[in-house]
Amino acid sequence: MHRPDRVPPVGQEASRNLRRVCLNPTSHPHRVVIIGAGFGGLEAARRLGHQAVEVTLIDRSNHHVFQPLLYQVAGAALDTSQIAWPIRRVLHQFKNITTLMAEVNGVDMAGKTVMLDDETRIPYDTLVIATGATHAYFGHDEWAPFAPGLKTLGDALSIRQHLLTVFEQAEREPDPNKRQTLQTIVVIGAGATGVELACTIAELAREEMPGEFRRVDTRQTRVIVVEAAARVLSSFPESLAGYVQHTMEQLGVTLMLNCPVTECHAEGVICKDKRIDAGAVFWAAGVRASPAAQWLGASADKAGRVKVERDLTVPAHPDIFVIGDTALVEQENGKPVPGLAPAAKQQGRYVAEVISARLNHHFAPRPFQYRNYGNLSTIGKHTAVVDFGRVKLRGRMAWVVWALAHIYFLIGVRNRLLVALNWLWLYIKGDRAARIILSRKT
Amino acid sequence: MHRPDRVPPVGQEASRNLRRVCLNPTSHPHRVVIIGAGFGGLEAARRLGHQAVEVTLIDRSNHHVFQPLLYQVAGAALDTSQIAWPIRRVLHQFKNITTLMAEVNGVDMAGKTVMLDDETRIPYDTLVIATGATHAYFGHDEWAPFAPGLKTLGDALSIRQHLLTVFEQAEREPDPNKRQTLQTIVVIGAGATGVELACTIAELAREEMPGEFRRVDTRQTRVIVVEAAARVLSSFPESLAGYVQHTMEQLGVTLMLNCPVTECHAEGVICKDKRIDAGAVFWAAGVRASPAAQWLGASADKAGRVKVERDLTVPAHPDIFVIGDTALVEQENGKPVPGLAPAAKQQGRYVAEVISARLNHHFAPRPFQYRNYGNLSTIGKHTAVVDFGRVKLRGRMAWVVWALAHIYFLIGVRNRLLVALNWLWLYIKGDRAARIILSRKT
Repeated sequence: MHRPDRVPPVGQEASRNLRRVCLNPTSHPHRVVIIGAGFGGLEAARRLGHQAVEVTLIDRSNHHVFQPLLYQVAGAALDTSQIAWPIRRVLHQFKNITTLMAEVNGVDMAGKTVMLDDETRIPYDTLVIATGATHAYFGHDEWAPFAPGLKTLGDALSIRQHLLTVFEQAEREPDPNKRQTLQTIVVIGAGATGVELACTIAELAREEMPGEFRRVDTRQTRVIVVEAAARVLSSFPESLAGYVQHTMEQLGVTLMLNCPVTECHAEGVICKDKRIDAGAVFWAAGVRASPAAQWLGASADKAGRVKVERDLTVPAHPDIFVIGDTALVEQENGKPVPGLAPAAKQQGRYVAEVISARLNHHFAPRPFQYRNYGNLSTIGKHTAVVDFGRVKLRGRMAWVVWALAHIYFLIGVRNRLLVALNWLWLYIKGDRAARIILSRKT
Repeated sequence: MHRPDRVPPVGQEASRNLRRVCLNPTSHPHRVVIIGAGFGGLEAARRLGHQAVEVTLIDRSNHHVFQPLLYQVAGAALDTSQIAWPIRRVLHQFKNITTLMAEVNGVDMAGKTVMLDDETRIPYDTLVIATGATHAYFGHDEWAPFAPGLKTLGDALSIRQHLLTVFEQAEREPDPNKRQTLQTIVVIGAGATGVELACTIAELAREEMPGEFRRVDTRQTRVIVVEAAARVLSSFPESLAGYVQHTMEQLGVTLMLNCPVTECHAEGVICKDKRIDAGAVFWAAGVRASPAAQWLGASADKAGRVKVERDLTVPAHPDIFVIGDTALVEQENGKPVPGLAPAAKQQGRYVAEVISARLNHHFAPRPFQYRNYGNLSTIGKHTAVVDFGRVKLRGRMAWVVWALAHIYFLIGVRNRLLVALNWLWLYIKGDRAARIILSRKT
């Protein structure tokens, strides 16, 4: 693992910045620690593979998740392993990368070590923080148990179990009013996750389940999307929003716009004094960055994102990069880089290039620039909206673009085959693969 | 759902037995309640589909599991939904069958109702108990947390998480002795489940994982099978046992025969005064029938199996059938019917035939007779043993027979395709599909 022969000598021509980071007085190779194996962290690690650095990639789970399809695991259309890969399997050919499954408790910037949950310290020369984001309940963390969010595979399985269980409970419920309450499902937030989750639930209940129950008419299921803003998919151009809203309503989803949630409890939600009793409530409204800003004592925005320089380093700490959903990066137009998978991936790649340039005494790359290749979202299993900037697509053709793009970005031929096969089945037979309740709701 | 017109009139020619069961003074059709949707219960329900009976199938989970492949879910080669099907999906075309996900608390034989966990009572005219078996710790239930068994999908996921987590822990462990302990995995019991589980673990560690870890040499993993009896696979003929033992040892599995476990604790097991420190201990030794005998106040053997008549009814209760792993049925040769999937399925079919004959006033079928079509077990991913009675196979050819038989008996074309694809991948690429730790071990 140690390849001191491949570490380049310290050059005098290096800039001050370079000198600070490259200075490698001991015999070990340059040590890069990456925290988080999401899109950004995994991409950074891959790009540093086979290079003259010693990389340690730390993640609290053993797998990388393809988050854009998490809602399909929640909706029982895909199984967990089809959108997740063991990190160490993905990286096994890079002998300079060590993968650790561990929780990070903090960063000791003076000692240049990362502190793990078992008190171990992992020393770094360069640190890359790519710890992502989690749900935020706008200061109401007490809502969390009543309105679970969707960020991890565990979250997706919880939502799936809760969703499938309400129909099982309804089938046992003699009181028709209580049945109707159980069959009411609320999704809070009309961003891409909220729209996709609500549509897949509506299709499950209205198209796939009828005929399987004797007491419940699953076509009577109410799926309600509650949104504080005036329209859906605020990250998409306004011209597509009307189409999306119309399509959602056709699928049987009820939209409640301009309707901020004021309370979540065990029986349902209250939005602007309107009480909605529900069997299940799911959260797709707000996200908050991981606690990286606290680890670093760095300045952050309200969502907890660390304000980084245009080269993605923390101000006054050129040896620490923050990328992905944990970072707040301004683009040239003054807008922040969006919290999307392609943006995180581009940042991971950029950071690897900067580290590589520093080690090889090349000039530092130009500041990070986000390239927007397009924004995609499905509305059910037949339609989607795609925003390529000038070109905007909607309807079935957009769905085909969406499906091809998502299959292409999955890792590995097997998972592409399996996901394609499952989607084909869903189309032809209307039969989801993974309607399995693993343990009973307590 | 109610089809009183299809209920046959009560005939005077019926036997006493028939009269008792058929007598249908009210207007409802004959009500059959089946508890348990394993191989026996599901088969009974399917055979009663589209018949002039009203069937209620109750299971504590929402899915039927193909138990013979559970060990592959535990070993991360298959995903949960590939060997499980939503019960109500499987039965949805039979409008006379209602599926309920519920826990049964007991049977009121006088009132002829089944009592559910929420105090609901489900009335029956005929009751079929097919509740299967669970692990038995030979009176040491306190061992359960240290040596989890393999009976449900949840069990399989627990075992998978525990198994994968010990390697993650070992990678973080600086002390080589502690690493070796973590890498020691004990399987208690050398029946089919124990042999299959141990072999799949050995292959995972020795063939698939090497190269992914930097500190751990997974080829040094010790997989130890501890068995109280003098040989492996006691349900197979002795002539195959030597071959199995030899093959297991070649895969790197250590066999400890004549070695009853006297203690399980958090650090490992003690067998006949020999202490084995281990990172994980799995239980594949004993099973105990579900508490059906207590519900019925019926006489049972030591394993809790209800002693039933040759027509699978409970003595003096011709309206109650007990089948599958919950029943003790004598064959003509005096031996009990084995607790295997094909036996349970044959019993489910037989019970449906008896119920049908009674309703249609035909003569009762002959006593149940188990037809043994063969016994199969894998030893790793290349070899198996097959016992067809006169013909015995072993090696690669037996594995092909095993694989074809198991794919054939899976429900549905999609799952057959998916399982076949996963096995093909495992063969060609040596890469398991489902090495995902869903939540961290606590």
